[in-house]
Amino acid sequence: MKFDETPVFPRGFRCTSTNCGLKPDAKDLALFVSEKDAAAAAVFTRNQFPGAPITLGRETIKGGTLRAIVANSKCSNVATGARGLENARRMAAAAAKEIGSAADRVLVSSTGVIGVQLPIEKIEKGIVGLAAQLQSDPMVGAEGIMTTDTHPKALSARVGDATITWVAKGSGMIEPNMATMLAYIFTDAEFDAATLDRMLRAAVHVSFNMLSVDTDTSTSDTCAILANGMAGRVDEKAFLETLIAGCIKMTETLARDGEGAKHLLRTIVRGAASEADARAVAKSLVNSPLIKTMVHGADPNVGRLLMAVGKTFAVKVDPSRTDAWINGHAVVKGGERLEFDEAAVRAALKVDVVDLVVELGAGSATATAYGCDLTSGYIEENAAYYSS
Amino acid sequence: MKFDETPVFPRGFRCTSTNCGLKPDAKDLALFVSEKDAAAAAVFTRNQFPGAPITLGRETIKGGTLRAIVANSKCSNVATGARGLENARRMAAAAAKEIGSAADRVLVSSTGVIGVQLPIEKIEKGIVGLAAQLQSDPMVGAEGIMTTDTHPKALSARVGDATITWVAKGSGMIEPNMATMLAYIFTDAEFDAATLDRMLRAAVHVSFNMLSVDTDTSTSDTCAILANGMAGRVDEKAFLETLIAGCIKMTETLARDGEGAKHLLRTIVRGAASEADARAVAKSLVNSPLIKTMVHGADPNVGRLLMAVGKTFAVKVDPSRTDAWINGHAVVKGGERLEFDEAAVRAALKVDVVDLVVELGAGSATATAYGCDLTSGYIEENAAYYSS
Repeated sequence: MKFDETPVFPRGFRCTSTNCGLKPDAKDLALFVSEKDAAAAAVFTRNQFPGAPITLGRETIKGGTLRAIVANSKCSNVATGARGLENARRMAAAAAKEIGSAADRVLVSSTGVIGVQLPIEKIEKGIVGLAAQLQSDPMVGAEGIMTTDTHPKALSARVGDATITWVAKGSGMIEPNMATMLAYIFTDAEFDAATLDRMLRAAVHVSFNMLSVDTDTSTSDTCAILANGMAGRVDEKAFLETLIAGCIKMTETLARDGEGAKHLLRTIVRGAASEADARAVAKSLVNSPLIKTMVHGADPNVGRLLMAVGKTFAVKVDPSRTDAWINGHAVVKGGERLEFDEAAVRAALKVDVVDLVVELGAGSATATAYGCDLTSGYIEENAAYYSS
Repeated sequence: MKFDETPVFPRGFRCTSTNCGLKPDAKDLALFVSEKDAAAAAVFTRNQFPGAPITLGRETIKGGTLRAIVANSKCSNVATGARGLENARRMAAAAAKEIGSAADRVLVSSTGVIGVQLPIEKIEKGIVGLAAQLQSDPMVGAEGIMTTDTHPKALSARVGDATITWVAKGSGMIEPNMATMLAYIFTDAEFDAATLDRMLRAAVHVSFNMLSVDTDTSTSDTCAILANGMAGRVDEKAFLETLIAGCIKMTETLARDGEGAKHLLRTIVRGAASEADARAVAKSLVNSPLIKTMVHGADPNVGRLLMAVGKTFAVKVDPSRTDAWINGHAVVKGGERLEFDEAAVRAALKVDVVDLVVELGAGSATATAYGCDLTSGYIEENAAYYSS
């Protein structure tokens, strides 16, 4: 799949970002706007303590139509009760007024410390005038939703005459607080909301839902897609393929920029009896602190691979049929550690992207999970004071 | 529950430990012996890649009788195939010969690097002569099974005329390798193997099975109880109460000495609809990297408590009925963060033992899980080279 060297927006989409005073200097407010109503779909965190914007977003997305997304950082508006929900509604209304639309066509995201009321007055003031600042570079919007991401994240690709653009913020920390993922996808292709929903779920299933930095599920995760139709209809199969490829590429980008991460870690399970089995083992591998620290230390302590497979109690594993590879080097065969060239495997663990492949010998299902190594950087970011 | 200030053995039990050359200097071989056959029960790791000693131990414990436990560190004899199992059998046979018993009455434990064949000749040589060195201090045996534990772990308590003694090694690292727990319990009370098995499972259920340092399930975990009957019969209810109390105390000791740990973390869930729900939420809390780093940093980022409750998807949670406390300070009420004295809560997070209490308001079931904070020490121990 070919992605644009410099990400661009599809026809009719623009964005801007600003500092509205939630943070001392950095940008803390972003606005993404389509010049006409867009069919839309979204998926949200499964956490049972969702933020007020998630509660509102679930209501908003039922309409299947969006004109804009407004997002702030520094405060996630979670655990804030009725007042929090009211503030999320005010944020949507302010953005709708600014762009001349309706509040039920604006998706709201907030990300940051949990349990602090949203400084809604600052946000409302900050929104005034943003419509005049809208521009065509998606990186400007990506910057506006950055928290401890080390770089803004946007990419784009073509499908026929249409463009798909992904803008996301990473599983990084906010005023060190919580791993939170926001991903917005914009396209000028023409699809109805139901089709978008189906395609979004298929793409998220194999990409963002297979991403884990630290097993902690955010209360604010949101992934939304907006299709304004300005490029007309495109081939659905080609669109879905590109959508999936871009979601996976963005997932890898987020994982590589995980808190304190030095490596992108991909765990690839093959030969599983079912896709559910493959996903469960891949997740167990990518989440294992002992595997994550092994990758960090470039230490070929390959028994840990078997440990992490074997602790996936929901999946019946046959040790005698289990093989494993580290970046192409065979390290386990039939459940037993192979003799291997340790220097070569150490070297293979030191490269930027580490692929751990496990073959279960039980069927033909596969899955890939995406994560990163575990470093002291993670501890430092997360042990620090939450208040700025 | 009162424990002896200096741990002692029950009647008829002795132990010794030595260096047999697996490590440069430190003790790497321990032997625990009852002077007469003891009724016995054991529980082992659920990991699907169990070490050879686990495979053998499951076979051995079927007999319901043990005379001795022989344990080595440095090499776990996991992922070593048929040769590994043969070596475990040779280790049992050597210990049996040394003490004049049968191999099927000797429980074998090995702990250390996975996927390395056991240096069985060194172990066999090391076992010769140990019978003459047996002594009455359980700490000597505890020293022999230490790995990266920062101190040996043994305790004892009385039940009527009988004594119960616990000897364990922690969820620490071995030649930095894998969290592994070995816990041996000795008593001179008289119980049959079936009763011991039932009591052991009840005690492990609320103690060692609620311990988590890093979510990684060892391939070698073993907890065994030996009752040689030399003190005659004691009240079963009193025995079970003491057994449970001692297992919980040892669990706390292991958690406090977890890899890199600076705090004992106890997560207490109340008001759950079922015990399974309470256990699941308590485990989610104790395993959350963001909670563990919050405790490490003494940072009252209390929204993380709700995040970790809310990500327990198997349990239906009602945010409006969820309250939380940190060492007695109310921080969440009805799913909303309370205003609280931040300095006081920061201070409460800095003490040695941090209790996080969550009330779910859904019933009357409770559970407690035991763990520790997550520090750079954990990363350093686990990222280092596995070979010495």
